[in-house]
Amino acid sequence: MKAIESYIRDINDFPKPGIVFKDLTPLLNSPEATKLCLQELLAQVDGQHVDKVVGMEARGFFFGTLMAQALNAGFIPVRKSGKLPYETISETYALEYGSDVLEIHVDAIKPGDRVLIHDDVLATGGTAAAVCKLVERLGGVIVQCNFIMELSFLNGKDRLRAHAVRSVLTY
Amino acid sequence: MKAIESYIRDINDFPKPGIVFKDLTPLLNSPEATKLCLQELLAQVDGQHVDKVVGMEARGFFFGTLMAQALNAGFIPVRKSGKLPYETISETYALEYGSDVLEIHVDAIKPGDRVLIHDDVLATGGTAAAVCKLVERLGGVIVQCNFIMELSFLNGKDRLRAHAVRSVLTY
Repeated sequence: MKAIESYIRDINDFPKPGIVFKDLTPLLNSPEATKLCLQELLAQVDGQHVDKVVGMEARGFFFGTLMAQALNAGFIPVRKSGKLPYETISETYALEYGSDVLEIHVDAIKPGDRVLIHDDVLATGGTAAAVCKLVERLGGVIVQCNFIMELSFLNGKDRLRAHAVRSVLTY
Repeated sequence: MKAIESYIRDINDFPKPGIVFKDLTPLLNSPEATKLCLQELLAQVDGQHVDKVVGMEARGFFFGTLMAQALNAGFIPVRKSGKLPYETISETYALEYGSDVLEIHVDAIKPGDRVLIHDDVLATGGTAAAVCKLVERLGGVIVQCNFIMELSFLNGKDRLRAHAVRSVLTY
């Protein structure tokens, strides 16, 4: 077991009955565990050059900003519909019931930028796949889809087959 | 003019007509400007000991996590109602029309913890005042309310009179 795993807390029936939510707030509450997790996330990048780190609202913002600074890269937030103030492009993606919309600023990424996509958890991969589309529509080159945790029983990697996918912890 | 000010973009009529929104995404997009801004935020702390940095959803997460790591402090997210998975306490605060609810995990702060409260913008101070209450209900000692930008014409400092308030940029 990796040292940081003891800082991830299982929450039963959140956000819905039957779901076991992986809560990373105990990890953030410890500066030592946060540093360890950051080091493991950076090790996944394996020295590849990264121009921009894209983090998904809202839990992708925590380690996304930390990774961006450590990699000397810009940080780009992807947000839910209507949250970003400047001109955006958007992608609609399917949820269990209905759909949701993600947006990115049109000037966030320049053609040819090498982009790392980060989120806390890879579940079904629907969110990450939508973010990959946004980045590629802006001309970005995806270096890696980078996660703290992968819920492998949801087969999210299948939706991201065109890209390198790395996770620190696999459940 | 401070160097980082050129990375803050004015967006007219966002999120509502008549409001000029201060967009910090160009700042996050530049690793150099992000580093400068972080240094200025840390300078405001002036070497005081901090155990926990509390950041407000969602824009307080960007520099909140960076400050926490730089200060060797834990990071605590304060979120809108229903977003935090573990047991929470909550505060309701007034908006221009209606009200909103902020939550913090009950185990986020230990009595006597020295807490820095961070957000991107100080506007009316309603959000920050609610967060101060949450922190104090858990026994935390507020070291400082720390912002990137202060919209001084909205008199937010008046609502935070019991606390030290510091901002990098004042408008």
